[in-house]
Amino acid sequence: MKAKVYVTLKKGVLDPQGKAIHHSAELLGYSALADIRQGKYFEISFNDGVGEAEAREAAETIGRDVLANPVIEDFQVEIESGS
Amino acid sequence: MKAKVYVTLKKGVLDPQGKAIHHSAELLGYSALADIRQGKYFEISFNDGVGEAEAREAAETIGRDVLANPVIEDFQVEIESGS
Repeated sequence: MKAKVYVTLKKGVLDPQGKAIHHSAELLGYSALADIRQGKYFEISFNDGVGEAEAREAAETIGRDVLANPVIEDFQVEIESGS
Repeated sequence: MKAKVYVTLKKGVLDPQGKAIHHSAELLGYSALADIRQGKYFEISFNDGVGEAEAREAAETIGRDVLANPVIEDFQVEIESGS
């Protein structure tokens, strides 16, 4: 069982790294871009025998406690039961 | 039109930051974790009038040229036509 956690900056929080990437991409000739925002991505693999509900709960708690800063960041959890 | 780009370390590439997060999570009492791997996540917003095929192509080129290091990282593009 695998959980994917996406951490993104909240709307309204400045994203200088995203702005820098946007600028670099424009310099390379990509003109159709409105905006690029940068975030973090985590893949959590659980031990065998962990159920989907348990994995989701653990991933959400870990997301809140360890991975995201809830003051400026949002996070989203997706469970992949395939593996 | 929005593209989401996920950048992950290739299999076999050491991920010390993921290991550190795994260790922290274990110290906090999460014992059912097999592994945590860390990656990057980007949301690219395109100007109005950019089609899905064009957005995918641009996101893949930007992923290869700017966002990922193809020597040690893989990346994946998802197009979200909703917005």
